[in-house]
Amino acid sequence: MKFYFLTLFPEIFETYFEMGMLGRAVKSGLIDYQIINIRDFSDNKHHKVDDSPYGGGAGMVMTAPPIVTALKSIDKYTEIPVVYLTPGGKPFSQNDGVVLAENKELIFICGHYEGIDQRVIDYYVDLEFSVGDYVLTGGELPALTLADAISRHIPGFLGNCESLSEESFEHYLLEYPQYTKPREFEGHSVPEVLLSGNHAAINKWRFEKAQERTRKKRPDLHKKYEKSLLNE
Amino acid sequence: MKFYFLTLFPEIFETYFEMGMLGRAVKSGLIDYQIINIRDFSDNKHHKVDDSPYGGGAGMVMTAPPIVTALKSIDKYTEIPVVYLTPGGKPFSQNDGVVLAENKELIFICGHYEGIDQRVIDYYVDLEFSVGDYVLTGGELPALTLADAISRHIPGFLGNCESLSEESFEHYLLEYPQYTKPREFEGHSVPEVLLSGNHAAINKWRFEKAQERTRKKRPDLHKKYEKSLLNE
Repeated sequence: MKFYFLTLFPEIFETYFEMGMLGRAVKSGLIDYQIINIRDFSDNKHHKVDDSPYGGGAGMVMTAPPIVTALKSIDKYTEIPVVYLTPGGKPFSQNDGVVLAENKELIFICGHYEGIDQRVIDYYVDLEFSVGDYVLTGGELPALTLADAISRHIPGFLGNCESLSEESFEHYLLEYPQYTKPREFEGHSVPEVLLSGNHAAINKWRFEKAQERTRKKRPDLHKKYEKSLLNE
Repeated sequence: MKFYFLTLFPEIFETYFEMGMLGRAVKSGLIDYQIINIRDFSDNKHHKVDDSPYGGGAGMVMTAPPIVTALKSIDKYTEIPVVYLTPGGKPFSQNDGVVLAENKELIFICGHYEGIDQRVIDYYVDLEFSVGDYVLTGGELPALTLADAISRHIPGFLGNCESLSEESFEHYLLEYPQYTKPREFEGHSVPEVLLSGNHAAINKWRFEKAQERTRKKRPDLHKKYEKSLLNE
């Protein structure tokens, strides 16, 4: 899988793809990435990439020409899905990550200021995603968030040390609580059942805790869980 | 406002706080941050910070002692809200950003692997937040996402070049489309009304577009918008 990032702030991508599990996946050749600095494609002598909005209003809007020229610098860009990160996009979900992981390449456009010229979205963007109902200073963190969430679904990414099968959202349930050594920490013990060696009892406890947590903290998710049981 | 980040991957924070609007706010003294490497607080000779979960299962869980020792290294840590980033937390919203921006200091704990020992959450964490219904390799991007969203609400952060008042979610409506120069791009013109100079007509067009977008793309948000009108 190869990710392309069109951005005004290249540094953050370099750093993130050098660290942790993504760094490991880059080194092993499982994922690849290319950072394209939109500013390099401005034909303005001051490398200007934004201007004030037509119709007035506060803030600056990123102009179409440098973004589109940057996009066209990617080989066969018309064959690659172009994703724009915006609070107005479809709320990104775990399942979107699963589906997007099937692409060989993905292009992310990161906006800044008051967003990008609508004509880029209308004529060049295939998918608009939002990471949540909040506003950020730019699309860089959302693009990295999608790249991270998608990467976890690429076969071989998680290896043997982590597991996709039991994690949050796959079955509309939050995760059960986890405990590790030491057995006693500041006077608080690990729940007895987890030390019992009785796997049936452990699974039952974990399942009940996951249900209880979801019901209490995310009634919206718990409703989806209950519906999914009816369809089984 | 000062942010503390407890993490196994310090580099990403350094980079993000050097760039863009957050970088500017750090330079001007509006925000400050401290990165605390949890690994530095492991008393294990190999600086081990995780272990296998009690009760079995795939993956590793971050142990409590180094996290709690790292937390206690912060001066008057008991007086500062401690935030843990987890898919099981409350979905972070624009309004949470407004509320959290009233704190002078905030501590973020970033988990990795299969999460952290539940006893840290039970006895040391004040708030659990989720950035969305998807799983990531760690809590670093979510912590930065919250710090970014919160910073935008600190008085003086946005300055004159951006505006908080008309943006997405503040009134349960998505943003209207934005256009800037050039007036004609690849044969596509800016909508005529935006060039009219008629401010009443422009505001009407933008408001209708915002409503239309929200109704079409986010019926859930549009319902909240309609409810908010009834309460006015």
